[in-house]
Amino acid sequence: MNKQLILAKRPIGMPDADTWTLQSTPVPEPQAGEVVIQHHYVSLDPAMRGWMNDARSYIPPVAIGDVMRAGSIGKVIAVNGHDQFQVGDVVTGWGGVQQYVATNGEGYYKVDTNLAPMPTYIGTLGMPGMTAYFGILEVGKIQEGDVVLVSGAAGAVGSVVGQIAKIKGCRVIGIAGGPEKCQYLVEELGFDAAIDYKNESVKAGIKTHCPKGIDVYFDNVGGDILDAALARLRRHARIVICGAISQYNNTEPVKGPSNYLSLLVNRATMQGMVVMDYAKGYREAAMQMGQWMMEGRLKSKEDIYEGIENFHETFQRLFSGDKKGKLVLKIIEEGQ
Amino acid sequence: MNKQLILAKRPIGMPDADTWTLQSTPVPEPQAGEVVIQHHYVSLDPAMRGWMNDARSYIPPVAIGDVMRAGSIGKVIAVNGHDQFQVGDVVTGWGGVQQYVATNGEGYYKVDTNLAPMPTYIGTLGMPGMTAYFGILEVGKIQEGDVVLVSGAAGAVGSVVGQIAKIKGCRVIGIAGGPEKCQYLVEELGFDAAIDYKNESVKAGIKTHCPKGIDVYFDNVGGDILDAALARLRRHARIVICGAISQYNNTEPVKGPSNYLSLLVNRATMQGMVVMDYAKGYREAAMQMGQWMMEGRLKSKEDIYEGIENFHETFQRLFSGDKKGKLVLKIIEEGQ
Repeated sequence: MNKQLILAKRPIGMPDADTWTLQSTPVPEPQAGEVVIQHHYVSLDPAMRGWMNDARSYIPPVAIGDVMRAGSIGKVIAVNGHDQFQVGDVVTGWGGVQQYVATNGEGYYKVDTNLAPMPTYIGTLGMPGMTAYFGILEVGKIQEGDVVLVSGAAGAVGSVVGQIAKIKGCRVIGIAGGPEKCQYLVEELGFDAAIDYKNESVKAGIKTHCPKGIDVYFDNVGGDILDAALARLRRHARIVICGAISQYNNTEPVKGPSNYLSLLVNRATMQGMVVMDYAKGYREAAMQMGQWMMEGRLKSKEDIYEGIENFHETFQRLFSGDKKGKLVLKIIEEGQ
Repeated sequence: MNKQLILAKRPIGMPDADTWTLQSTPVPEPQAGEVVIQHHYVSLDPAMRGWMNDARSYIPPVAIGDVMRAGSIGKVIAVNGHDQFQVGDVVTGWGGVQQYVATNGEGYYKVDTNLAPMPTYIGTLGMPGMTAYFGILEVGKIQEGDVVLVSGAAGAVGSVVGQIAKIKGCRVIGIAGGPEKCQYLVEELGFDAAIDYKNESVKAGIKTHCPKGIDVYFDNVGGDILDAALARLRRHARIVICGAISQYNNTEPVKGPSNYLSLLVNRATMQGMVVMDYAKGYREAAMQMGQWMMEGRLKSKEDIYEGIENFHETFQRLFSGDKKGKLVLKIIEEGQ
């Protein structure tokens, strides 16, 4: 059977256990031109929260009754006249939170698990890594010597942003929750400094670690931290708006950045990004990041939980911060 | 004697009559390398409110006891070994709210009153015009066919922004206060439509007049109008942050734009600007705008009040909106 996680209702605020239901259906057969993929891992990302709202956005919302949208990776187990994939291929795409999927292969691509393990392909070599790569290079336009501040710095996107900025010769300061994550940023990932937003003043931390201000701020969180960064911009600074995790479960209106007039004073730019726009460059970016990983200059860390039935509990870790690196849910053991 | 307007205290909220004091000093004599200018007009601009706050900004605040900073235009009446200006030259610069000034001429330039009257040189051919020109062209990066929304559209900057956008083949919608100003925008300046924020819903107006959304929003006002514009951005839209007049007299924190995540959804950019950065291009911009004025394609309107002693009352019109076009204060009659 195929266990599928179905969106049962639109949550208000933080999703509760009744937001999704689990259903079992027969494993699908491939129709003409289709393949069937057995999923081993699905990706859990903050953006999923946005996809559950009935609002116009960069992608249509997940419909009530549909399988919950998610990035996924797995193995092709059946093919019916498909010219791109063969049985045994490991492929990644938008398969959703389900154990099996039948698809014409659109949006999927084949990966090589000799180069990196499956979870890395939905992390650093997948959407979060691509978001980091294009966000910091194309939108942030970092230059050697820039002071780069990253929020959500221990997360799937932020950790890659910071490491790429270090590779490019920037001074990098990360904001993360708790001493363990901050230690990880500095000692394992080579950040120049880290600010523990749960235990210290972000405002004071930025002042200490960016005494001359910030050239690029990569924002994953929004809220007060965005305001603190705005208050310390250098001239011609760039703010990359990648996400706003502090606001996703709000039941009140989003907190707008009160300090936005710092953009005027400092002739600075705040720009939003959506990773799908860079699809043409994914292949090259993955090659570059794979190269950096092999050279030991880019570290990838996944935090893997098990069992589709544990989706809700695992999902909550995105917002509590109780995770270490990219959050991944294993839904079928590899080799099975 | 030389009547001078002195900043007496830092206002909280809207400046009251005691914010400035008038003093009389002898008309200065030019020191070696100086000229003395007799001011005929000073420019009243919303940015002046910001210069009165004791806060780090793009320019140092006006000190208590100093002459109030302002753009000015007048005639050179005395020269002491100055190689650039002669008696009788009409010059514009940052002379402040005073009838006479002695200066080495730094930041001043000579203008030709055969081409345009003096008040136009502190309006459309002065800082407000330059702000409009570089803001909409260099920061807004307008293209033919763009839908351009302008707030403060009947003001010194906004009216020029809209007219330049029309010249460049855009569809232009202005936001202004009251039916008279809205009529002026459409009937005299050739805007495609106007939204009267005092008498109609800006949100609804934008929906009606920009049914496919906004490509460029030129913001002079901030607050709820910025949020309404954010809600209707097209993909890759540009927001030019030129000012935020709705927030300048706030005694509470600035209202940040709650809808800023529209930047993410629409891959849009919000960028601040300060006109001084474009000083190298002023001459060329003035020639281009002068050309458009002679061709009747760019209209300039000044609302001139009289008397340095009426500064405070006139200044309030910036914020009440009770003015028509560029606000100018005449402080010495021309020809005297």
